[in-house]
Amino acid sequence: MSGASSSTLAIVGVGLIGGSIGLAARRTGRFSTILGVGRDPDSLHRATALRCIDEAAELPEAAKRADVVVFCTPVDQVAKQVLIAAKHCKARTLLTDAGSTKASIVAAVDRRAPSRLRFVGAHPLAGSEKRGAEHARADLFDGRLTILTPTKRTPGPAVTKVSEFWESLGCKLWAMTPDEHDRVLAQTSHLPHLVASALASTLEPGTEMFTATGFRDTTRLAGSDPALWTAILEQNSANVVDAVAKIRDRLNQFHKALRSGDSDTLLRLLQQGKAVRDSLSGGMA
Amino acid sequence: MSGASSSTLAIVGVGLIGGSIGLAARRTGRFSTILGVGRDPDSLHRATALRCIDEAAELPEAAKRADVVVFCTPVDQVAKQVLIAAKHCKARTLLTDAGSTKASIVAAVDRRAPSRLRFVGAHPLAGSEKRGAEHARADLFDGRLTILTPTKRTPGPAVTKVSEFWESLGCKLWAMTPDEHDRVLAQTSHLPHLVASALASTLEPGTEMFTATGFRDTTRLAGSDPALWTAILEQNSANVVDAVAKIRDRLNQFHKALRSGDSDTLLRLLQQGKAVRDSLSGGMA
Repeated sequence: MSGASSSTLAIVGVGLIGGSIGLAARRTGRFSTILGVGRDPDSLHRATALRCIDEAAELPEAAKRADVVVFCTPVDQVAKQVLIAAKHCKARTLLTDAGSTKASIVAAVDRRAPSRLRFVGAHPLAGSEKRGAEHARADLFDGRLTILTPTKRTPGPAVTKVSEFWESLGCKLWAMTPDEHDRVLAQTSHLPHLVASALASTLEPGTEMFTATGFRDTTRLAGSDPALWTAILEQNSANVVDAVAKIRDRLNQFHKALRSGDSDTLLRLLQQGKAVRDSLSGGMA
Repeated sequence: MSGASSSTLAIVGVGLIGGSIGLAARRTGRFSTILGVGRDPDSLHRATALRCIDEAAELPEAAKRADVVVFCTPVDQVAKQVLIAAKHCKARTLLTDAGSTKASIVAAVDRRAPSRLRFVGAHPLAGSEKRGAEHARADLFDGRLTILTPTKRTPGPAVTKVSEFWESLGCKLWAMTPDEHDRVLAQTSHLPHLVASALASTLEPGTEMFTATGFRDTTRLAGSDPALWTAILEQNSANVVDAVAKIRDRLNQFHKALRSGDSDTLLRLLQQGKAVRDSLSGGMA
């Protein structure tokens, strides 16, 4: 990094996140060239037209040329692409990803990559239910938290440099283990997606017009891409199972209180939910 | 109504909804005086300062003076206040409410009010988790749907005039029976509130900083007033119990698919949720 303007960034998977990384990285002026890797030529053309990337490249070539490679593909593809890149990249090339799960990805890389590979798992807590570089924004990461998940195997200087990279995009940083990440994110992100989907599914056909902003906000995440989220939920299934059990218990408490006309319990349950929700207001927008 | 500028409107309960009705009614120029009824003198002062109302009054006096009375109090107070107003109002005075439940309110009024009382139950599908006239907006109802729930007992001309009143505030209208209203709203509004609260409660202390917009949007409704929502859930408990059972079934399907690693089922569940959510995009904002 160090502001060298002859640096090359490669973005593997140029959708909403990858495209936004391109725009945010361009804003820093630290990269002379931004390469985009992807399977769909149309997406790559669009990302080029939108200045998210400068040119398209195949993964081996991009890895060979890049000083930093960021993997923004679905979570079930990240590890194998990192391992391909590991065969072609320079010894000093930094590798990081933006996957919503970490344990499975980081374990697969740790297990099979050369021990000196400068890969640091990452997860920027930013995004949208929308897809594609056409929704990319240079300010997507501004003030948002990116979680880094280095392990004992991760070379220390790589952690420093990858931290600098994410910070240059506008992020604040936090480090935790891949397992801790997956346990926490099961509750703060994966469960809300699952719940939003379940809630949307309860809507009876013909009653759409009787939904207002409440239903729409609560189910917004249900509009996310089902294939991407199947992979995320599967990679973190044990933690998500625990999280589902937790909300199911809570729904059972509501159910019981409603059936028995227990106002005191209903009030207490709602008060507890409000206390938690209100505690978030001071945090990130 | 008929544009007579010497008309008097009385708003019972001058919070977010009542205050917004005041501002929207003032915008129409149809009322020479807007009275506000409430227990809290500070709230009434604030509502007067914000021009939501012109002056405060006690319920009997307001009912006596008003041509239209709108009840915007918690759902467990509406029916008894309508019955008090019924004793004092003129024969031609229109009465309507903005309660989130209808069956219990309308049945209590039908059962105990004089048969010629010009009361029409209503529920504007607009609002916010915020409270108080300080959040009132003249455009809160613009383009939103208000559900009217006349019964066989409701005088026909009252339905026409109350419809005109709500339309003058900017609403579109829909009519259904009180029971149908409560069954539909249990799913489209009451269940989302309950689910948002349950989801918020699952958050472990100390993990607030790892929530992003997804968690925040999905739990926004959990910030609603617990006492107001206890009354709503209780008045509609049978329908809400059914709605809770429905999402619990869906969560069980997710739970089972996750435990057994059944990707096909996970994908199908998420696709179904997305199809429903996507079908809402063309509707009201």
